[in-house]
Amino acid sequence: MIDSLDPEALPLAGLRVLDFSQFLAGPSCALRLADLGADVIKVERPDGGDLCRSLVLADQHFEGDSALFHTINRRKRSFAADLKAPQDLARVKALIARADVMIHNFRPGVMERIGLDAASVLALNPRIVYAAVSGYGESGPWRGKPGQDLLVQSLSGLAWLTGDAHADGSGPPVPAGVSMIDVITGAHLVQGILAALLRRGVTGRGARVDVSLLESALDLQFEPFTAFLNGDGSQPQRTAENHASVHGAAPYGIYRTRDGFMAVAMTPMDRLAQLIGSDALAALAADRSGWFRQRDALKQQLQQDLLAQDSAHWLAILEPAGVWCADVLRWPQLVDHPAFAALEMVQTIRSASGASLRTTRCPIRIDGQRLYSDRGAPRLGADTEAIAREWQLDAPLPCAPSSSLPSRAP
Amino acid sequence: MIDSLDPEALPLAGLRVLDFSQFLAGPSCALRLADLGADVIKVERPDGGDLCRSLVLADQHFEGDSALFHTINRRKRSFAADLKAPQDLARVKALIARADVMIHNFRPGVMERIGLDAASVLALNPRIVYAAVSGYGESGPWRGKPGQDLLVQSLSGLAWLTGDAHADGSGPPVPAGVSMIDVITGAHLVQGILAALLRRGVTGRGARVDVSLLESALDLQFEPFTAFLNGDGSQPQRTAENHASVHGAAPYGIYRTRDGFMAVAMTPMDRLAQLIGSDALAALAADRSGWFRQRDALKQQLQQDLLAQDSAHWLAILEPAGVWCADVLRWPQLVDHPAFAALEMVQTIRSASGASLRTTRCPIRIDGQRLYSDRGAPRLGADTEAIAREWQLDAPLPCAPSSSLPSRAP
Repeated sequence: MIDSLDPEALPLAGLRVLDFSQFLAGPSCALRLADLGADVIKVERPDGGDLCRSLVLADQHFEGDSALFHTINRRKRSFAADLKAPQDLARVKALIARADVMIHNFRPGVMERIGLDAASVLALNPRIVYAAVSGYGESGPWRGKPGQDLLVQSLSGLAWLTGDAHADGSGPPVPAGVSMIDVITGAHLVQGILAALLRRGVTGRGARVDVSLLESALDLQFEPFTAFLNGDGSQPQRTAENHASVHGAAPYGIYRTRDGFMAVAMTPMDRLAQLIGSDALAALAADRSGWFRQRDALKQQLQQDLLAQDSAHWLAILEPAGVWCADVLRWPQLVDHPAFAALEMVQTIRSASGASLRTTRCPIRIDGQRLYSDRGAPRLGADTEAIAREWQLDAPLPCAPSSSLPSRAP
Repeated sequence: MIDSLDPEALPLAGLRVLDFSQFLAGPSCALRLADLGADVIKVERPDGGDLCRSLVLADQHFEGDSALFHTINRRKRSFAADLKAPQDLARVKALIARADVMIHNFRPGVMERIGLDAASVLALNPRIVYAAVSGYGESGPWRGKPGQDLLVQSLSGLAWLTGDAHADGSGPPVPAGVSMIDVITGAHLVQGILAALLRRGVTGRGARVDVSLLESALDLQFEPFTAFLNGDGSQPQRTAENHASVHGAAPYGIYRTRDGFMAVAMTPMDRLAQLIGSDALAALAADRSGWFRQRDALKQQLQQDLLAQDSAHWLAILEPAGVWCADVLRWPQLVDHPAFAALEMVQTIRSASGASLRTTRCPIRIDGQRLYSDRGAPRLGADTEAIAREWQLDAPLPCAPSSSLPSRAP
């Protein structure tokens, strides 16, 4: 196993995390903790484990599981346990007594029935941070709804912020093409867990941390949603074409050129008209107060003007003039660009049998270092016995929990 | 000032954060730290301060600044300083010597010229966490490009994952209608800062933490991007219509109904055909291996079937059957729904003169408590003198830094 930094120098070295969650939001939180140095243990059902193991994208498998599972669960270990079997549950409780953090995304009520709700777990280990992800919170009429990314994009209003309205207003709501709500919710859970661990360093006590997909989806929209809350109660309008922001004045958007597309962000319209040499646009742009109110007309004229030349032509004029604009790249163009190579964003993970898979690294750099690790995801239950020995699950609990983070005080 | 929790119970109570950043990515990171209890001080130019103060959305102002500025900068304080004036710079260095965290988003090279680069600052205060946001990293051909959300959506490939391809492949790239890259980058910076503070609790030493919009945009896409990295190098295809995910099998997407729209997530197509009573769809869905490969044809038929009835009709059939589906709400519908009320997601911030503004709260709940605070954003420089007194900027630095988080060890 190779880590780019001395594992002991990683910021979360010594932190013990139990991850009972499946799919993306919870596991992506645990992945970030693992990348930052934590010892993350997936606690999985013996029959099949995390359902993501069999969720295959693009027909890609790796070591008997989906490649997707390895993407999300690399650098973790696996402990197999059936929470409905008393003997396994006792072992899981012994794990919990020795852990710093536990994460789950069971639906409201499930952990209560097993006896692993926050109150019971904090009674068992008062120093643990008990972190839970739900779809819509633990109460309210949607508490039983499936907590799924596309559904939350749809219920939270997010889908109505994207896509063109069209001149007659008939444009459909458009979901983002990535599971952005799962990812942002996982990111919020990381924040809550780490903040609670800092407080534990001061007070000695653990915490309960809760996030939900819906609250995180609203937080993601907090800028325009706050404007809505303080407005007249009407839905903000998307632009007819080239839409990118309900509150963006022209030209904010992506435009078609003769050979492709280009993005233009906040730019004074009169200057833009001058730079691209459009008298028609200059006439429309003369009244600065219309840059927002007449944005549909301005965008329409700009779109017509930009069709006359290739993207490279426009970029060569606009970029040196300081206009905020950019090409719109597909991945094959992006990965061929020297700017992508300069990021050194790709790492290779390897399995015991020598197979390899390329994926992205942690986006956070520490002390100027990029964090790499070549560890793949664990086979289901691969580490059950090793963990039982290391954590001395069958021995009585020592007086002080044995995790290293809290006991190595400054 | 009202906080819902005893401020001392907030997880980051006592943490001192200096925020030199402007606009959204950096300030949204500092906002999260403030919501979690930190004392966040915006260090701003005396002439105008954060440019966001004059960035107005929807014609909304509040206390002389844009309402947007208050949305992002509530619960912070303001210290006015001109980093180019030697006397002010000396005071800022005194602040830095007493702080736990500093955040900036100046372009690469700016802080070096002022003498506040990471190495100089860590020499001044070896316990500080020095956190920086850039657009594209500190090196590489794009280092000087404007770090702006829409441009990074365009350059990172994200815009090509969203929107319909259309039958002839002519569908344009579609940007997300919120500044999701700024927000996710700010979220990653919070993670790096808190992880570094935990390590400081063990080692006593600070850290440098770097994130960039481009790395965070790639991390946001890590699921489909990893499949791309391990595939044949070709751009993954969006579906012709009802697109929601390049790797999603039918029916994954948003569909038009007789009176509106509805979302349908992962669902076995044969069962869906049976539930909606479509023989044509059942015939197409009989071959399970076609659910991904023939998804355009399946989605087209499903779209045609769903047009026959209102959303409520379909939801009444599909939801009780366990199909993952949902209405597609606009904000006015969402905020009128009891499920929104149950979240208690809205808080009111107040100014000294009694004006009020409604906005969202922190999406993270701690110990079962929602975190509310009614503090608005500071007037430019409002707290300069109070902070100078509290932090004893004009006195020699005490032997141990005075911030409470590190000194209140367990």
